[in-house]
Amino acid sequence: MNYRILTQAISDTLASGDMQSLRTFVRDEHAADVAAFIATMEPVEAWKMLDLIPLGQRAEVFGYLEPDFQVELAQAVSRQKLAELVTEMPSDERADLFNTLSPEQQEALLPALAHAEREDLRRLAAHAEDTAGAIMTSDYAVLTPGITASQALEKLRHEAPDKETIYRAYVVDSERRLVGSVRLQSLILAAPSTPIEKVMERRTLEVNVDDDQEDVARKIADYDVIALPVVDADNRLVGIVTYDDAMDVLVEEATEDFHRIGAAGKMVTSLRDASIGTLYSKRVSWLVMLVFANLLSGAGIAYYEDTISAYVALVFFLPLLVASAGNAGSQATTLTVRAIATGEVVMRDWGLLLGREILVATLLGVTMALAVSLIGLVRGGPEIALVVALTMVIVVLVGSLIGVALPFALNRLGVDPATASAPLVTSLADAAGVMVYFAIATAILLPAA
Amino acid sequence: MNYRILTQAISDTLASGDMQSLRTFVRDEHAADVAAFIATMEPVEAWKMLDLIPLGQRAEVFGYLEPDFQVELAQAVSRQKLAELVTEMPSDERADLFNTLSPEQQEALLPALAHAEREDLRRLAAHAEDTAGAIMTSDYAVLTPGITASQALEKLRHEAPDKETIYRAYVVDSERRLVGSVRLQSLILAAPSTPIEKVMERRTLEVNVDDDQEDVARKIADYDVIALPVVDADNRLVGIVTYDDAMDVLVEEATEDFHRIGAAGKMVTSLRDASIGTLYSKRVSWLVMLVFANLLSGAGIAYYEDTISAYVALVFFLPLLVASAGNAGSQATTLTVRAIATGEVVMRDWGLLLGREILVATLLGVTMALAVSLIGLVRGGPEIALVVALTMVIVVLVGSLIGVALPFALNRLGVDPATASAPLVTSLADAAGVMVYFAIATAILLPAA
Repeated sequence: MNYRILTQAISDTLASGDMQSLRTFVRDEHAADVAAFIATMEPVEAWKMLDLIPLGQRAEVFGYLEPDFQVELAQAVSRQKLAELVTEMPSDERADLFNTLSPEQQEALLPALAHAEREDLRRLAAHAEDTAGAIMTSDYAVLTPGITASQALEKLRHEAPDKETIYRAYVVDSERRLVGSVRLQSLILAAPSTPIEKVMERRTLEVNVDDDQEDVARKIADYDVIALPVVDADNRLVGIVTYDDAMDVLVEEATEDFHRIGAAGKMVTSLRDASIGTLYSKRVSWLVMLVFANLLSGAGIAYYEDTISAYVALVFFLPLLVASAGNAGSQATTLTVRAIATGEVVMRDWGLLLGREILVATLLGVTMALAVSLIGLVRGGPEIALVVALTMVIVVLVGSLIGVALPFALNRLGVDPATASAPLVTSLADAAGVMVYFAIATAILLPAA
Repeated sequence: MNYRILTQAISDTLASGDMQSLRTFVRDEHAADVAAFIATMEPVEAWKMLDLIPLGQRAEVFGYLEPDFQVELAQAVSRQKLAELVTEMPSDERADLFNTLSPEQQEALLPALAHAEREDLRRLAAHAEDTAGAIMTSDYAVLTPGITASQALEKLRHEAPDKETIYRAYVVDSERRLVGSVRLQSLILAAPSTPIEKVMERRTLEVNVDDDQEDVARKIADYDVIALPVVDADNRLVGIVTYDDAMDVLVEEATEDFHRIGAAGKMVTSLRDASIGTLYSKRVSWLVMLVFANLLSGAGIAYYEDTISAYVALVFFLPLLVASAGNAGSQATTLTVRAIATGEVVMRDWGLLLGREILVATLLGVTMALAVSLIGLVRGGPEIALVVALTMVIVVLVGSLIGVALPFALNRLGVDPATASAPLVTSLADAAGVMVYFAIATAILLPAA
């Protein structure tokens, strides 16, 4: 669908006051699509649209909007109307919105909410960013031991409209400690009088409220479950994380790693909507830092100025050799960073990977040395060819080893391994490449001169 | 848990013949965990373990194993036993396994299967890789119009054990054309006599069997649905894609883009298990190709050999300037490639992004020029400082524009935008950097000389 044309049509309809056709439109389209239209509007017009939608569905549409736009909308409406909407939102989305509001807006909103919502919001909003607690919802279905399958079904039927999912319900004891979980499917299949203990699974795969959101998301993907229960330090059930939020986390974390490996900072807004200022600030610090890293290469060159003056032809091969070290390093770091992020390799595998990298990189270096030595022969004679070929093997090896070792080293230091970005590894490999090249050249050529 | 120690304990138990405790172990652990243990064993031992597990659960465990290991296991067992297992597997996993087997193994397996499974397998295995058809399952629940909610529930209850999900069932007409879908939750909430037409959603969000798997996965994530129906060209329902497979696709595609942006080929096996040969072959072609791209830089240097001989101090700044162009280009291409992959930006945004990049890159270039000109002044005097500063602004701009433009251009040509890898953009930016640097140096310094 072409949103822009359709949005124009909707704006015209809004102006003309033909509310019935708009009502039909918002009723028939998926909330995600309605949100996509509304996102192209000014806040005041967006509210005209939102007002046409029944409250429950309105909260759903609102949940699909970007955080920035949600805040704009929150500013453009009365406190009472906002409170009404916020009350209807799923608890996790409500907490996210709350955390995005300014302190003044938060202060204004809280008194307008009912006591239960206010307490729930305070509790959910308190968790540290990027933890299970920050993405969990408190809208989950609980059951108690000792009831039958039909009693459980009756309870779920009653609670369903307010819960994020009833496809899996959690069984807790009198102190809210998790004792098992049961799939709706199992309840439907069981004879009505079956005790719940017979159909529930005792292995609950719970996560802790402080666990990293990426680990939680990966666990949901690995075990193919719809949701995971979240417990506090006393093993009390405090929320669940659902598969749809896990999907968002996986995409978001991959994007973050992508930006890191490209040596750009974390961006909250999409690339399309980011301002010049944001883009500048997310990129400039790494670039300037790398300028200074690259001075190392310059210093290497200055040190060997005599060799260069004697053999200017050496400069011809300089970009080629340092770039090859950088490229091999880029490959190695990208493969390593992603393998750590997906859990394919873990810290204790570092020796294995480094050992194998020595073999692979040597093979790669020899192949590239063969490719380049012919050119060396033509342009500089046999001695230059020897220098270039030898250098190639060594710099590819050095670059690759930096690429594998750096992510592990950073991880060890508690820094995100993706900080071993391609540009950083390239710059380090470049500097190493310059040193190796001129050291070999000096050793081989200068005694002969 | 420490798998290695536990695996040793299990091997010992297998050897001692204490089957009861192993049976308890495999019954209580999640299938994904049992699979993780089995993956560390030799095929013959693995089969001893698998044989302890009841058939239905065995198929589930088998489904969690890596494709390569599944094939090894398939080779180590009788055709009859394999057919028994394969029959119990979910249809999509069965088709995946079938496509991984050698033609001889496929020929051997087919006659051992029942007619229905054989036909289903042939149909599913025929779809092109990376399409909705290749990841869909045929184990979905269908309902027909004209029945009541309680009749629908009865049918689902009956079919549940064989279906991948009954949380959403699909309503099809007599020609199997999709007319709507209904959530199990809605059926449970509805009065028993409600006609299914009253509770079903008519907007089905279906995807086509030939749609790209990444688009399908992203759609599941965007709309927060448990599954999407897949239709053929005549709008007939042929399968569903479930959220768990969509998650795997999102992770897999992100990994593929990661490897591409690092200029490594697509890898099927994990980095941990990849052989030296695989790693070599996935990396060597790009590296050798880039060697030749970097000859451009060398050629640029050769062309300006007189300038270099006259001002050897220029070489000091060479790695710094070309690296800066490459780093800015790496950042730009990484941001652009990821934004295209997640759908944040689309093809028609290219003008917007390129226009904004001119502003951002100029600001970045000026900042870096300021950082470097001071060093230029100290090491080479005011004229060198001017050359270096001017060059910095221009090469950062050129590198950044290559980084933004190349992914769009490749996408336009039908090539994956991630092929605009950081090393490729770096190499192109390097070559441009060399030319710009010496051209500016020649223009400013040589007339003065």
